[in-house]
Amino acid sequence: MVGFISSTANELLTGGSNLKFLKIAASAAELSSFKSNPSFLGKFAELNKPKTQNTFRYDTEYYTQTLDHFSFSDLPTFQQRYLISTDHWQGPEKMSPIFFYCGNEGDIEWFAANTGFVWEIAPQFGAMVVFPEHRYYGKSMPYGSREKAYGNAASLSYLTAEQALADFAVLLTDLKQNLSAEACPVVLFGGSYGGMLAAWMRLKYPHIAIGALASSAPILQFENIVPPETFYDIVSNDFRRESVSCFDYIKKSWEAIEAEGRKANGLLHLTKIFHLCENLNSTQDLSDWLSSAYSYLAMVDYPYPSDFLMPLPANPIKEVCRKIDNHPRETSVLERIFSGVSIYYNFTGAVDCFDLGDDPHGMSGWDWQACTEMVMPMSSSQYTSMFPAYDFNYSSYQEECFKDYDVKPRPRWINTQFGGHDLKTALKTSGSNIIFSNGLLDPWSGGSVLQNVSETIVAVVTKQGAHHIDLRAATNDDPDWLLEQRTLEIKLIKEWIDSYYQEKTASVSM
Amino acid sequence: MVGFISSTANELLTGGSNLKFLKIAASAAELSSFKSNPSFLGKFAELNKPKTQNTFRYDTEYYTQTLDHFSFSDLPTFQQRYLISTDHWQGPEKMSPIFFYCGNEGDIEWFAANTGFVWEIAPQFGAMVVFPEHRYYGKSMPYGSREKAYGNAASLSYLTAEQALADFAVLLTDLKQNLSAEACPVVLFGGSYGGMLAAWMRLKYPHIAIGALASSAPILQFENIVPPETFYDIVSNDFRRESVSCFDYIKKSWEAIEAEGRKANGLLHLTKIFHLCENLNSTQDLSDWLSSAYSYLAMVDYPYPSDFLMPLPANPIKEVCRKIDNHPRETSVLERIFSGVSIYYNFTGAVDCFDLGDDPHGMSGWDWQACTEMVMPMSSSQYTSMFPAYDFNYSSYQEECFKDYDVKPRPRWINTQFGGHDLKTALKTSGSNIIFSNGLLDPWSGGSVLQNVSETIVAVVTKQGAHHIDLRAATNDDPDWLLEQRTLEIKLIKEWIDSYYQEKTASVSM
Repeated sequence: MVGFISSTANELLTGGSNLKFLKIAASAAELSSFKSNPSFLGKFAELNKPKTQNTFRYDTEYYTQTLDHFSFSDLPTFQQRYLISTDHWQGPEKMSPIFFYCGNEGDIEWFAANTGFVWEIAPQFGAMVVFPEHRYYGKSMPYGSREKAYGNAASLSYLTAEQALADFAVLLTDLKQNLSAEACPVVLFGGSYGGMLAAWMRLKYPHIAIGALASSAPILQFENIVPPETFYDIVSNDFRRESVSCFDYIKKSWEAIEAEGRKANGLLHLTKIFHLCENLNSTQDLSDWLSSAYSYLAMVDYPYPSDFLMPLPANPIKEVCRKIDNHPRETSVLERIFSGVSIYYNFTGAVDCFDLGDDPHGMSGWDWQACTEMVMPMSSSQYTSMFPAYDFNYSSYQEECFKDYDVKPRPRWINTQFGGHDLKTALKTSGSNIIFSNGLLDPWSGGSVLQNVSETIVAVVTKQGAHHIDLRAATNDDPDWLLEQRTLEIKLIKEWIDSYYQEKTASVSM
Repeated sequence: MVGFISSTANELLTGGSNLKFLKIAASAAELSSFKSNPSFLGKFAELNKPKTQNTFRYDTEYYTQTLDHFSFSDLPTFQQRYLISTDHWQGPEKMSPIFFYCGNEGDIEWFAANTGFVWEIAPQFGAMVVFPEHRYYGKSMPYGSREKAYGNAASLSYLTAEQALADFAVLLTDLKQNLSAEACPVVLFGGSYGGMLAAWMRLKYPHIAIGALASSAPILQFENIVPPETFYDIVSNDFRRESVSCFDYIKKSWEAIEAEGRKANGLLHLTKIFHLCENLNSTQDLSDWLSSAYSYLAMVDYPYPSDFLMPLPANPIKEVCRKIDNHPRETSVLERIFSGVSIYYNFTGAVDCFDLGDDPHGMSGWDWQACTEMVMPMSSSQYTSMFPAYDFNYSSYQEECFKDYDVKPRPRWINTQFGGHDLKTALKTSGSNIIFSNGLLDPWSGGSVLQNVSETIVAVVTKQGAHHIDLRAATNDDPDWLLEQRTLEIKLIKEWIDSYYQEKTASVSM
């Protein structure tokens, strides 16, 4: 499964070259602010294909989709890709379920390959599996091509969560009708942004899906709900938890980098220490490169070796900190840091030098979404975070979005549309059948729902879990708590389906 | 309060002259189909001002509203009008409620004047009252003027229910913030289409409003849910219930009109019998004029004299049938019919001759809505209806919409968006605090929710009620059942608010 990362305006400044209509990409030198919000989904999700052989069998289909569900403007339709498997489906007669993964900001094949859980439990449920692609990602491009879809603010304007949910609703309704499967219960799955979509879809379209497993879904990571320091505090705590000295070295490193950069030949020296392929232009570039490694590490801090974004050992933060800590006393902070991040950037040892430009900060669909409705304010506290201190500044965020995308964010809209502060209160009496699963190592967990809301809207929280680990395929190294988590999730999903059947039987026999 | 009426394509054909971009208004002569679906809201709601002195005090405000909430197209904002009264509001300290009427397809002042119930109960709740106007109606016109807003399909394309709900959500969120009233519970009210909006808003925005009184809200009057004959069957039964012979005379009249029309000078003769101001061009025009009178009569068949659309006596259908029945035996069907409909068209006796063009069939915003997402199939059964037999034909409906509006309807979308067949099942576990109130005389009741869905989603059904009579101001002639109905509604609303306060207190003391 795939994590997800919000982009802040700061980050947007570092990318942008992909997009033709970007006016001016501010040079990194102009920036003094903290800009390490990770954004791996951009390039990873859109460019990467499954690295390993995809063992899940499915057909690839396309659905002619409405571009704007909420107006009747005369717009072209587009082809939405979806992956479908009916191999284990027991058909409409048995009202066998439909497992529907809410595709997020990337190529759907990548999500399908990284969401083993859904494929693995489908046979025991006799379930159909559908993985629809999110509009404007992968091969589901309005206007016929990525180039045209991403051409300008007008062509991008239909890239919203509400439109994506409506795509899912329309596709599901049509699929069910074509397969005479109107009575078959739909269970939604999603991780990260996809988990947000799954939860929101269950709330907004309760007549279409009977429940949702929303894994690592930070639906509260918006304006004035959770403190903006949350994300970086969690990353920092993940490091401190492994080693206080490691945390301290990292926290000290920023000033060390700055100090070095101010020296004559300092940038050249940094270039050498960090084995960069090209000469460093600014210390900010280096800090960003390091910061994003830490954030990604926190997200994929899995208890077994994985190759999600980068090949990594089990418990990678522990390994990073071991590297940082285990040096002769006289080793400089910068050398320690380099040895640590090498775990992330060069675990295989195959990299001779590092290209900061390779950092997946490219302008992506998510950047647009972050500049329109997905405004997730993030700050870094000078007291509790190991990152450079940074206060989220909405004015400059807005300014940069306008400069880069010709668009003005609507930071309050998501809360108005999906519920912000009052969501949990509302959910107590409205809504049911949602699992919010979170691992507390995951920096996104702070923006999610961590306590049971009602009898049927429940939080499944694991202390040792990272970003939607529950949705990943089973491995031989899965710890007990993960096996238990999945067993619980299967049990809850089964209860939803059983209670749906009871309801159906009751209404038929009436 | 104001009723509401769907337009079918057939009806659209008779209007249309208001709209500049209409290509060809098909002449009535081309039509053989049944086209009496009433549409009084068009002209009534948009052109009529309250006839009686409006005794409810409010301020008129405007809110700068987003034209398209679901895309980030670069569109102009528009001014949404809303009426607001804080006279009885006890303020944020007491978390006093906000009563919010979901404005429907017409001038909001007219709705405010005709929704006495909300104003009358506000003081006992210490409630603020807000009546926001629905976009594209009254003074809430995008693009600066009705002429421009209704200029073409592109400018009309944002006239949808989803956008209207989003308007309400955004306006409410802003109002609450400005008044520091974030914690004040919002109760939604609405009649007819406004009732549909109230119910849908409670379902889609449960974090914004704690409950909804949806009066005469036919949320199931869509494709493949209720039988298409429902509406005209109810109208017909309203007449049969008063007098079987009256029903029979009406049922026979259509052929009598046709037969007369086929004679030499038949149209002239009909012109005389029906006291028309201008010579009749086709029997269809006359049939439509009569049909719409019967439908309106069914909707406003109130137990006391009223002046809603037309000045009418108490129990107007009884009066119409008395007129039709009470004649010497030799009186022709047509003369009987004329005396009957005169109750509707000329109760005051002030009209010398009738202008069929005065029938409020003008092209209106609702016609656009009916040609886009509000596709309500309606047929007239040759067996059970007193109206001319007619089978709803979607192809010709679609064709006419395209011809008239350059737009293709999406007949399945409303069910996908708001729930059709599965809505009631979904509501059992999702959603709460909705009253669906209906009077069984009202032809729209057949498309509404007439049975309790859950403990908190309840149906309040009155045998003797017509179109959202419960929302009208109290009169001295209100029958006991109406007093009881209103008492029950007040009790339920009070329960919602009390339970909201309990929830709030519990979460604060936690």
